[in-house]
Amino acid sequence: MAKIKAGVLGATGAVGQRFIEGLKDHPWFELTSLAASERSAGKKYSEAARWRLESEMPENAADMTVVNVNPKEVDADVVFSALPSDEAKRVELDFAAAGFAVASNAGAYRMAADVPLLIPECNQEHLEIVKIQQEKRGWSTGGFLTTNPNCTTIMFTLALKPLMKFGIKSVQVASMQAVSGAGYEGVPSMAILGNIIPYIGGEEEKVETEPQKILGTFDGQKIIDADFTVSASCHRVPVMDGHTEALWVCMAEDPTPEEVKKAMLSFDPGLGDLPTSPKKALIVKDEPDRPQPRLDRNRGNGMSISVGRIRSGIRFICMGHNTVRGAAGASILNAELMVKKGLL
Amino acid sequence: MAKIKAGVLGATGAVGQRFIEGLKDHPWFELTSLAASERSAGKKYSEAARWRLESEMPENAADMTVVNVNPKEVDADVVFSALPSDEAKRVELDFAAAGFAVASNAGAYRMAADVPLLIPECNQEHLEIVKIQQEKRGWSTGGFLTTNPNCTTIMFTLALKPLMKFGIKSVQVASMQAVSGAGYEGVPSMAILGNIIPYIGGEEEKVETEPQKILGTFDGQKIIDADFTVSASCHRVPVMDGHTEALWVCMAEDPTPEEVKKAMLSFDPGLGDLPTSPKKALIVKDEPDRPQPRLDRNRGNGMSISVGRIRSGIRFICMGHNTVRGAAGASILNAELMVKKGLL
Amino acid sequence: MAKIKAGVLGATGAVGQRFIEGLKDHPWFELTSLAASERSAGKKYSEAARWRLESEMPENAADMTVVNVNPKEVDADVVFSALPSDEAKRVELDFAAAGFAVASNAGAYRMAADVPLLIPECNQEHLEIVKIQQEKRGWSTGGFLTTNPNCTTIMFTLALKPLMKFGIKSVQVASMQAVSGAGYEGVPSMAILGNIIPYIGGEEEKVETEPQKILGTFDGQKIIDADFTVSASCHRVPVMDGHTEALWVCMAEDPTPEEVKKAMLSFDPGLGDLPTSPKKALIVKDEPDRPQPRLDRNRGNGMSISVGRIRSGIRFICMGHNTVRGAAGASILNAELMVKKGLL
Amino acid sequence: MAKIKAGVLGATGAVGQRFIEGLKDHPWFELTSLAASERSAGKKYSEAARWRLESEMPENAADMTVVNVNPKEVDADVVFSALPSDEAKRVELDFAAAGFAVASNAGAYRMAADVPLLIPECNQEHLEIVKIQQEKRGWSTGGFLTTNPNCTTIMFTLALKPLMKFGIKSVQVASMQAVSGAGYEGVPSMAILGNIIPYIGGEEEKVETEPQKILGTFDGQKIIDADFTVSASCHRVPVMDGHTEALWVCMAEDPTPEEVKKAMLSFDPGLGDLPTSPKKALIVKDEPDRPQPRLDRNRGNGMSISVGRIRSGIRFICMGHNTVRGAAGASILNAELMVKKGLL
Repeated sequence: MAKIKAGVLGATGAVGQRFIEGLKDHPWFELTSLAASERSAGKKYSEAARWRLESEMPENAADMTVVNVNPKEVDADVVFSALPSDEAKRVELDFAAAGFAVASNAGAYRMAADVPLLIPECNQEHLEIVKIQQEKRGWSTGGFLTTNPNCTTIMFTLALKPLMKFGIKSVQVASMQAVSGAGYEGVPSMAILGNIIPYIGGEEEKVETEPQKILGTFDGQKIIDADFTVSASCHRVPVMDGHTEALWVCMAEDPTPEEVKKAMLSFDPGLGDLPTSPKKALIVKDEPDRPQPRLDRNRGNGMSISVGRIRSGIRFICMGHNTVRGAAGASILNAELMVKKGLL
Repeated sequence: MAKIKAGVLGATGAVGQRFIEGLKDHPWFELTSLAASERSAGKKYSEAARWRLESEMPENAADMTVVNVNPKEVDADVVFSALPSDEAKRVELDFAAAGFAVASNAGAYRMAADVPLLIPECNQEHLEIVKIQQEKRGWSTGGFLTTNPNCTTIMFTLALKPLMKFGIKSVQVASMQAVSGAGYEGVPSMAILGNIIPYIGGEEEKVETEPQKILGTFDGQKIIDADFTVSASCHRVPVMDGHTEALWVCMAEDPTPEEVKKAMLSFDPGLGDLPTSPKKALIVKDEPDRPQPRLDRNRGNGMSISVGRIRSGIRFICMGHNTVRGAAGASILNAELMVKKGLL
Repeated sequence: MAKIKAGVLGATGAVGQRFIEGLKDHPWFELTSLAASERSAGKKYSEAARWRLESEMPENAADMTVVNVNPKEVDADVVFSALPSDEAKRVELDFAAAGFAVASNAGAYRMAADVPLLIPECNQEHLEIVKIQQEKRGWSTGGFLTTNPNCTTIMFTLALKPLMKFGIKSVQVASMQAVSGAGYEGVPSMAILGNIIPYIGGEEEKVETEPQKILGTFDGQKIIDADFTVSASCHRVPVMDGHTEALWVCMAEDPTPEEVKKAMLSFDPGLGDLPTSPKKALIVKDEPDRPQPRLDRNRGNGMSISVGRIRSGIRFICMGHNTVRGAAGASILNAELMVKKGLL
Repeated sequence: MAKIKAGVLGATGAVGQRFIEGLKDHPWFELTSLAASERSAGKKYSEAARWRLESEMPENAADMTVVNVNPKEVDADVVFSALPSDEAKRVELDFAAAGFAVASNAGAYRMAADVPLLIPECNQEHLEIVKIQQEKRGWSTGGFLTTNPNCTTIMFTLALKPLMKFGIKSVQVASMQAVSGAGYEGVPSMAILGNIIPYIGGEEEKVETEPQKILGTFDGQKIIDADFTVSASCHRVPVMDGHTEALWVCMAEDPTPEEVKKAMLSFDPGLGDLPTSPKKALIVKDEPDRPQPRLDRNRGNGMSISVGRIRSGIRFICMGHNTVRGAAGASILNAELMVKKGLL
């Protein structure tokens, strides 16, 4: 089978680099186009980007010439968007209109009624709404737009999925978020070395509204939000990668910690075998002091969410890799779902 | 006025050093005795202890000869205990029986019915229970035992005090605790560099039971616990000093954030002017990203609690210096209260 | 005595804040003017600046209105310059020509032949060259320009001063520099958390040329550089404040470590009692694992240099506070020297 | 071919875990025995050890029963020793005498005249001295003892190897060493968070004597040390893994930086294709700010040494993974060399 051509929008930044890393040796996708700002366009990628990851820059990307973020310059079937939100707002619809399948990590269109906000393990059926999106927006090119959630949302929403059967009423989440979530220049070292910043602009608003859409129901026409509330307190910590979250979940059926654990352990996302879906989407740790970002963020190649300390309350900890499962890896898994569903 | 003679039990450890620092140039107390384990006894303090604080070792302490943790060897009116819990359990009663006023930072007797668990700004009247303690235990020497709370408890309990009038029903707290709380050898660097440990042994149990005693009522005979619940999730972070806490407080009267802020701003602990009581016990920060441990832990010489981000929910952040306000400084303030109340 | 009026140029940045902190309650200087970029000018300082220091913003500064970096807008006798090098290059001469005594931390004019590069403990006599400066440049207003060295230079050059009598031939220095040296936004956390960056742009060049001027001889007309070489390797480390330096010093007389130590201990800078000159300019530590930035950077209110591990080689470690002794404190001490010498 | 049976001595500690990780799926060796202290012996490895690595504990190790560090209990052809130096001193000779090939990371016998101190890329011919070792010690069982250097030594000695032809006269090295080099409990977080410790007990002595043996000549009977001096200054930094070293190398032929670079680039260790020898033993980085531990330590699966900033002096930076190339990986490569040379 010929591979599907894949482009990356915003290819030089921290998440753009994670897309390139995640697409390396991908069995279904072949990296064919790297788009970035005018400053980078025209240069070889190895000259345009300063590679910040612990892995090496893949050779195929290094030699590619960067193009502008313009549908006419990008040669791809699917584009992965690591654009900043304002730029995403301007151009992602153009890409979709021009016939690209767009898998976006940006926040711009997550809450648009006709745009699916996907965690494949949670709501693969929401992908179908792109048909309505294409109709409504008059796109006949086959293009469409999908999004993945905010990095902090993804971790605990995946952990909440198997608990939906207990009747979730309210969720409280205190996050301890890695600096990579803010991009390479996002957090000065003088701000965070040996320190905590108990505020991340705009984060709590996203965390408090996205889960209900993700865990909502698609009735064939629209997504009906799940009926629970989320109250968040988001904090930046001196950790490179891996968001750790402390949760309180109030449920109608008041399950015991053992029942919660059992529900998580037996969780089957019904995804089958996608190339980057981890063997276990949810890992439940029994050690009293886990999960920890340093030790657990790379489980399932960074795609597994680790849960621990399930206690009465119900309280638990969940942790995942914010720039893999919480960003680039999320969109790549979304694109794999598109292939599985025949949309790519 | 002659100064009151003060000793430190467990003088070589991290909290013991904070006691010595806090007693330097104290207007009411004079450091007269340093007690530590057999290994240290008989040595000059400057040889027995490796000083770990950013300030310099006070000269008067440096030249003192360390004695054993034995009432017969300690020359003092009041002793400050920085002993580990098990040793505190063994010897603190002996010191009280022998006539010492004991101001303990250890956890051993905090929850004993006849031992006051003091935050002077919250429950100075609880100190009177030492009369009952002396009677009940048959101590005629004038000695007695007082304690200060766990470091994590102190921060938010002080912040809860002015909210009691709104009818606190339940509290949820997620802590991000500094490594100094575990003592000098407590947290290996390999465990915490660039990492989060979502567990601190025994901590949540203390945090969930101490506040109700502190904010309870002394009826002349016994302390009646305040009637609310606390649910805690405690986490270690790579910060040297300063515990940051995210709180949700559910109150019967459902005050607005503005009402909560006003209650905190107008909070008067009724302490008068004790030597180390800060000008403001509670500082309310208006900046969206404060308090932060690095920037705010030294307010009020480490004795002020800083609060910020008071939002609907009611949610807020509180932060304080864990080895000053949360340990040595707490006991020294307790001893100042004893002087004010005529017990010393 | 009326205090001397002092202004700060570049008052909102990291070093500017250290100037304001250092001038608080200064016995000789009174802060009268704060100058910063157009963006800040016209605002109250408390609104223009985000205060990043652990101390609180001094109240007198908070209420001051920021002015432009323009001699006509600044009301002061002496100005302390924390300007970036390019802006310093443009405006510092204007300030001197307009009659201000300029004490600059910027690199722009350090190596100009008629500008003294001062460490008062090393070369107070170099200050006299400002007379020649005024003549040569035709300044009749009484203004003049002085500079302090690069932060890395200061630490070890002060430690070399008492060794000059042994005939220094060559110096090798490997530095481990704190992030605050690069300014608040200088080092992204993603660059330095748990990492070392073995390069600081332009630093080694400064470190290799400034010491010879500082330790050179003023013959009444010009400064004759000292005759030794410096070879530097500069590295950034995840430390907030405090530059640590490992040195090898090759000397003609080949002194023993004991002789080196003795020379340092008996070093008398001949400064008398200036307000911020530390009781000991050089502290020699005997503990095998000192000095350390966390424990020693605040000695002498941040103005002492701590030396340790003097071994054969001659090798030793020296460490000092880079934004106090290495920046703002250095210029304030220079201004105190001006007063002592009758230039202010 | 049947695999060679491999045991690990000191299997529960930080280096022991790296041995187990390095032996996972090894093409020539099969893990057959895990030995540790009495406290662990008899337990399943997964119960005896707390796994501290970012990778997962290999399943074959998890289920193995730990035995005592006793030749009679260990079932293996080759044993890898991660023992502390004093225990290594006691038992490694017993293992060799009992017929085991011992590949030790411990410091106990590195400088013994008849024990090879190996870096296969530097001195593979030294391995032959084990014949003399066996004779001299009267071992007829086929057992023998080999060692790998101290972690700090390995990095720069490998970088020096291609420079030997220029006539190395003296070397100065300032190291910035990761905390993992001290073992899991070795460095308390309170000692190193945001700090530098300019001292590592015993380290400089090793670094100053091992390179001359490694780069020395084996004349068929004994190893004749290379004739140059090393002067070291060793420092601990808040980095998890990866030792960074700043070097000055004085050479008789006074090569240019370009000649040094060329010598490194053309360096061929003549090892052929051993399973864990990296494609490039020495990587030369051209970027001005590299190598960095976070970005470069995993090159060549942690077995490559990265060099950068080759400047006049000759100065350069070298960096490698201290618990892989500098410890467990070093001994595994030594054992591969034994196989190649027919000793296993």
